[in-house]
Amino acid sequence: VSTAGLIIIGNEVLSAKVSDENGPFLIRELRDLGVRLMRIAVIRDDVERIARDVREMSAEYTWVFTTGGVGSTHDDVTVEAIARAFDVPLEKHAVLLGLIEQHYGDRANEAALRMALLPRGADLVGMGEIPFPVARMKNVFIFPGVPSFLRTKFAVLRPLLRQDPFVLRQIFVRVGETTIAKAMTEVAAESPDVEIGSYPRFDTQEYRVKITVESQSKERVEAALGKLIDRFDPAWIVRVE
Amino acid sequence: VSTAGLIIIGNEVLSAKVSDENGPFLIRELRDLGVRLMRIAVIRDDVERIARDVREMSAEYTWVFTTGGVGSTHDDVTVEAIARAFDVPLEKHAVLLGLIEQHYGDRANEAALRMALLPRGADLVGMGEIPFPVARMKNVFIFPGVPSFLRTKFAVLRPLLRQDPFVLRQIFVRVGETTIAKAMTEVAAESPDVEIGSYPRFDTQEYRVKITVESQSKERVEAALGKLIDRFDPAWIVRVE
Repeated sequence: VSTAGLIIIGNEVLSAKVSDENGPFLIRELRDLGVRLMRIAVIRDDVERIARDVREMSAEYTWVFTTGGVGSTHDDVTVEAIARAFDVPLEKHAVLLGLIEQHYGDRANEAALRMALLPRGADLVGMGEIPFPVARMKNVFIFPGVPSFLRTKFAVLRPLLRQDPFVLRQIFVRVGETTIAKAMTEVAAESPDVEIGSYPRFDTQEYRVKITVESQSKERVEAALGKLIDRFDPAWIVRVE
Repeated sequence: VSTAGLIIIGNEVLSAKVSDENGPFLIRELRDLGVRLMRIAVIRDDVERIARDVREMSAEYTWVFTTGGVGSTHDDVTVEAIARAFDVPLEKHAVLLGLIEQHYGDRANEAALRMALLPRGADLVGMGEIPFPVARMKNVFIFPGVPSFLRTKFAVLRPLLRQDPFVLRQIFVRVGETTIAKAMTEVAAESPDVEIGSYPRFDTQEYRVKITVESQSKERVEAALGKLIDRFDPAWIVRVE
């Protein structure tokens, strides 16, 4: 099972200047790829804070994705923070430097060349496939905050990230959560590697609670689903999907 | 200046089963109330993880808001985690117990009564104003995950949270970030308590970068704005708002 952490960087998101699209996009993509997203941190342009979250998530999860804070201005501190997280210096990356010089030409001033800096040991993924490849430092992928650029870059990673898909079954019941709580607690305790969730709805007459049963193992999902149905009063169940 | 941290709890958000509406809502509300949102954590239904984030954010920020993980089923562990964060036991809260017994009547089974548990020392805010008041433990407000319930509950907190509004000015320029980076870095360093941000746009011809200057002090914003305009070539500026 692959796991992931996501770090969304930028004061603009926390101060309502920009509505984050990258979080919702990556949640859906990772789900589709069979990667279990464990945590999202939305944080400010703060070197220490970024470094700390990168260090922690890199140690805990298979993959880490950062979005935002890359560029040429004073509030772009993500790359510096990743270097600090791994206690390595920043260095101009020769290939990236070449791409930047080619892109900016005569306008390649100090601020532009600063964008060639990467933590020592970082490499580039997707060279030749997209105009600006994805920078990776160990298991941390560095993405820009601009949603269209992020999507282009993320596309080259899909084959690398893909795992077995999640298997999801659902039971819809006409009783409230308090009625089914005991059976769910028991089955959850008996079903390792299966996630059982319950979601009440208040805006439909069709059912009151949706119960989700999921895992990357079809057998385990079916076993847990069967145990739930056995313990539920048949009159409770609206439908099973 | 009031600061805030937000903890969004629930596997369903991270696994793309539910699209989170509470984060975007609270980002806008806190902005409108003049409260500086410092960090958002989106985390799983995991007692240790929730306890850790609550403990940290409670110590760092003026206010903390949790959403989700309250209810009667096995995946509702927020209240237990908050008790653990402050190292206090869970106790049935007499007023909450009365409200639950009144609501559930004969259906008040063990799972329902479990929802009367709060960390020792917690109190209720908004009694008499809304059917189920908001539970607070020290500076941590506990919200449900259902968006309509969260909104009703948040409304009673507005008078308590309100601070001076943020003052925002903006400069739109027709040059790229690399051209303005040096001036921005210098003015940012000279302008304490002022946040200066720059946001490139690639989908309009009107301008290439929006520069934002903001603070809760109008004087400081105007001073920083003036310094930026002084250092910019007038030909760069499309407009100032």
